Amino acid sequence: MKLLRYGPQGQEKPGLLDAEGRVRDLSGEVADFAGDAVSLEALDRLRGLDVSALPVVEEPGRIGACLASVPNFFCVGLNYAKHAAESGMAIPPEPILFNKATSALSGPFDAVVIPRNSEKSDWEVELGVVIGRECSYVSEAEALDYVAGYCTINDVSERAFQIERGGQWMKGKSAPTFGPTGPYLVTADEVGDPQALRVTLKLNGETVQDSDTSDMIFTVAQIVSHMSQFMKLVPGDIIATGTPSGVGMGMKPQRFLKPGDVMEVEVQGLGAQRQEAVAAS
Amino acid sequence: MKLLRYGPQGQEKPGLLDAEGRVRDLSGEVADFAGDAVSLEALDRLRGLDVSALPVVEEPGRIGACLASVPNFFCVGLNYAKHAAESGMAIPPEPILFNKATSALSGPFDAVVIPRNSEKSDWEVELGVVIGRECSYVSEAEALDYVAGYCTINDVSERAFQIERGGQWMKGKSAPTFGPTGPYLVTADEVGDPQALRVTLKLNGETVQDSDTSDMIFTVAQIVSHMSQFMKLVPGDIIATGTPSGVGMGMKPQRFLKPGDVMEVEVQGLGAQRQEAVAAS
Repeated sequence: MKLLRYGPQGQEKPGLLDAEGRVRDLSGEVADFAGDAVSLEALDRLRGLDVSALPVVEEPGRIGACLASVPNFFCVGLNYAKHAAESGMAIPPEPILFNKATSALSGPFDAVVIPRNSEKSDWEVELGVVIGRECSYVSEAEALDYVAGYCTINDVSERAFQIERGGQWMKGKSAPTFGPTGPYLVTADEVGDPQALRVTLKLNGETVQDSDTSDMIFTVAQIVSHMSQFMKLVPGDIIATGTPSGVGMGMKPQRFLKPGDVMEVEVQGLGAQRQEAVAAS
Repeated sequence: MKLLRYGPQGQEKPGLLDAEGRVRDLSGEVADFAGDAVSLEALDRLRGLDVSALPVVEEPGRIGACLASVPNFFCVGLNYAKHAAESGMAIPPEPILFNKATSALSGPFDAVVIPRNSEKSDWEVELGVVIGRECSYVSEAEALDYVAGYCTINDVSERAFQIERGGQWMKGKSAPTFGPTGPYLVTADEVGDPQALRVTLKLNGETVQDSDTSDMIFTVAQIVSHMSQFMKLVPGDIIATGTPSGVGMGMKPQRFLKPGDVMEVEVQGLGAQRQEAVAAS
């Protein structure tokens, strides 16, 4: 299933993309997609519905983040070797974990607001993992059984805030609109192997990031298993699994977002995003 | 007001401690304490209730965390000079920010579970700040206007996970039960100056941490203002504001939690906690 949320900011309704590419209204079936509403059991129930009996939404309008809220917006750092190199950092021996503030979550086509006093706002296309079942101390072999699905994420990052402001990284990862997520939560059964997905980001039409999740240092299964040794993951948690090379910080000369820049962000099979950068008010 | 939640884990009801120290049932007035239910407006409405008309709970039983869930469980690192010194780290020029997984939240009297493979689980009494109003780009002078109230927090930490496992700190801060919070959310009007509160922690009856929030390097107002430059804080967010010296990592020789150890944790005016450490199953 491709699940989504449509409607004005803060008033989104849950929906489903049908085989013909139309949005079907799920608001009669589920209040919204958050927490237990994306548990494996809840998704199984939706899977049993007769899609043809769900109302077609003729004009869905804006598409919101594919999750209404998240218990945690986790991120993995430096998970592609070339990106670690362009960042001037070593390949990590174990996954680096940090968070975005959950208030950073935003829609896949919403403007990205460059924060006040920002001179180094940057882009990061990433494969997002959504947890579907409480998860503690799971093995790598079992880990994917705890995944509800996947989504496209732009882990927008302010490099000066992230690195030069006394730590830790979440300081540069958490501004409002720094978490475009969606358009779809694609259930794991439709994605197949999460390590065989192309990830791309275009800036003003020019491809700047172009890699494949097969290049990840730590696989999704390794990340979920590793995290579950240190914390309990819960349904609706997002894990952004790291970005490949091609971010602005790694360019020579460095290049950062300015108002009017357009990012087109895609993970294969999970849907494309498009954001325009705008100045903070 | 002193707000609290009582009842078995996962089935807590919201309540209020009355002037005679009895629990009054608030479940007819508010679904639970989380998010907008602790906004300044929501608290003002509760403040207008006739407490004597609320049902007395004769046997409240277990006391849960004073918040049902939190959008973010933020923490400030190294915010007392002596604690920075005992940690072998420099005094930070700006607040160090990191997160606990929100699934770490637990009740003030619940057992603290030492995670599997842990050899360095440690204690940290902290003043917790609860946000009451959306907060972006606020000045230090305005910052306390965005605070709903305060609570006692034990920011339980696994030092090897935090420091020796490839980063960042959240890896050692996030295990289940690593966030005892409460017993009370004490509204800001009852607390007065948040920089004049004694903070203490006893381990097996021996006082190991004993300081005062006047010793914080960054005040609550400075922390809230600083954070709001980088992210939007929202109602129900918790900020644990750092711990004073006296943690196990700073002792010579170092001393860490073992099953049966008892922590008594208190911030003046906010209520005392008591946790027994137990081994993970």
